[in-house]
Amino acid sequence: MANQTIRCIDHGQGGGLECLSIIQTAAPLPGAGEVRIRVAYAGVNRPDILQRSGKYPPPPGASPFMGLEVSGVINAVGDGVPASRIGEKVCALTPGGGYAEAVIAPAGHCMPIPEGLSLKQAACLPETMLTVWANLIERGQLRPGQSVLIHGGSSGIGTTAIQFARWAGAGQIFTTVGSEEKAAVCRGLGATRAIIYKTDDYLAVTQQETAGEGVHLILDMVGGDYLAKNLKALALEGRLVQIAFLQGSKVEMDWSLLMMKRLTFTGSTLRARSSEEKSRLCLSLQQAIWPELSQGRCLPLIYAEFDLTAVADAHRLMESSQHIGKIVLQVNPQLS
Amino acid sequence: MANQTIRCIDHGQGGGLECLSIIQTAAPLPGAGEVRIRVAYAGVNRPDILQRSGKYPPPPGASPFMGLEVSGVINAVGDGVPASRIGEKVCALTPGGGYAEAVIAPAGHCMPIPEGLSLKQAACLPETMLTVWANLIERGQLRPGQSVLIHGGSSGIGTTAIQFARWAGAGQIFTTVGSEEKAAVCRGLGATRAIIYKTDDYLAVTQQETAGEGVHLILDMVGGDYLAKNLKALALEGRLVQIAFLQGSKVEMDWSLLMMKRLTFTGSTLRARSSEEKSRLCLSLQQAIWPELSQGRCLPLIYAEFDLTAVADAHRLMESSQHIGKIVLQVNPQLS
Repeated sequence: MANQTIRCIDHGQGGGLECLSIIQTAAPLPGAGEVRIRVAYAGVNRPDILQRSGKYPPPPGASPFMGLEVSGVINAVGDGVPASRIGEKVCALTPGGGYAEAVIAPAGHCMPIPEGLSLKQAACLPETMLTVWANLIERGQLRPGQSVLIHGGSSGIGTTAIQFARWAGAGQIFTTVGSEEKAAVCRGLGATRAIIYKTDDYLAVTQQETAGEGVHLILDMVGGDYLAKNLKALALEGRLVQIAFLQGSKVEMDWSLLMMKRLTFTGSTLRARSSEEKSRLCLSLQQAIWPELSQGRCLPLIYAEFDLTAVADAHRLMESSQHIGKIVLQVNPQLS
Repeated sequence: MANQTIRCIDHGQGGGLECLSIIQTAAPLPGAGEVRIRVAYAGVNRPDILQRSGKYPPPPGASPFMGLEVSGVINAVGDGVPASRIGEKVCALTPGGGYAEAVIAPAGHCMPIPEGLSLKQAACLPETMLTVWANLIERGQLRPGQSVLIHGGSSGIGTTAIQFARWAGAGQIFTTVGSEEKAAVCRGLGATRAIIYKTDDYLAVTQQETAGEGVHLILDMVGGDYLAKNLKALALEGRLVQIAFLQGSKVEMDWSLLMMKRLTFTGSTLRARSSEEKSRLCLSLQQAIWPELSQGRCLPLIYAEFDLTAVADAHRLMESSQHIGKIVLQVNPQLS
């Protein structure tokens, strides 16, 4: 494959769906500590949309192409990685470039396919589950019995976060969604109360259902007007963990509540972390969640599957926010 | 004393210095778990100014009068407090009412006078040291070798925070001050670099002196325009701890850096905490810092002393921000 070319999705200078095209490019070569994965499936994530539109340039050294998670088979290794790993089926967090027939990933970012899961399911795990793990469990420090509010409950992140919150022993699990259909799915996954934000006010509902105490932890990807409202919805010593700002990160608001209620506002992105930090997160996630997956719990919810050549349809669906759970690209399904 | 009256500072409906007057009021009676302290000295704190001006009403159940810390002698006890404590010299965090000849405090908020310190020095400890302890050490989690930026370095809080940072083994200790005279005092207390904010930009200085890494922890009481600048000044995983918003808590700014650098923004006030929580803080502070005080380290810096009847002069000085360190009211100095 070293001299071969592969098919890969390019987004040129960035923009709307029209900027997407399939190109032939040289198969990438793994560097020291890296592997090359022949891709079976690639997960589609919200940051891909931002990257395509030119708003979220890849960090220095990363692939210029989209795609943050894949499943497939290792077919080449770089220095320091045993050749015996060739042929191993893995799912991996990639430094971009997952929308392709082959992609490079650090060996430490490859995880085994959980027992009983398909390559299609496994492709949906890394980016979403590592993000939820790092933010809801580690950074947000969700503790048994605590209440949590998960915004965007029907997204890939949301459906995973609801299941992780249940796994962590959360008390009340609130989530916000856009329709009754989505609410029903979230309740099925473990949400105590799915609030349809178009008709109900999440601040009023959470205040009422916590007897005025407020929620202990909020996982938010909305930002904008939600920021001030999230502070109001938090209990004393509550934490707000921000993983995206879909409604904007520039906000005018009063912060005195943060001090009066001793709140903590924090957040993180996965992509900006060091490679060592990502390897550590992969190990923590496997130890805690892989056994759950093999028991049929915390499974990824897959809403739609598209051929790699239909990537524009996949992005259109994600931008519509009509999906419930993950969207996945089929690249080489015959690897399964 | 039960049927006696005491002199006490009243601020009427609140406002400027003209609202201050000395009144006679009934000596307060200690409730269950409380003591009454005959006051020798009372510390003056920034929240007193806010309370006087009507911007910081006391929490429910607290004294309507000003004064958050005193030193003196216990002269009455409530149910559950041994009578043997009468006659004990203490310094105490009070739920207001310290600007008076006698004040009530929960027994758990009374601390012994550190060996070798005067009652005048001891009156300056509780509010300031508990605030710095709770925010710089506990909430801010300052670790040995980490860099810290302390705004308002010449205030009571600032002069204490610089000394606590040194005690905690901080690496670089940056502080902001308004004059070279104040800068010299802060350097004497342990500041690595005192930045005169009128001529130097603290963001530029801290970036340069940390080789672009930024500072690990910021203790801020300014707010306003400092908020966005503080985010820029922080290192990856840095923490901003807010203990007041002297320049305002309503701010328009972009929060994307919080997520990209995995920052934590938190803060607290001492007064809003539960009585149990304050008792716990008193114990932690004594264990860690009382031995230091008795060794002549971390001492409060006293800038000026006023008679209780000259409280308006004390407030005028604090509002001028010309002081360096603490301002204290002399109530019954003969108790020493």
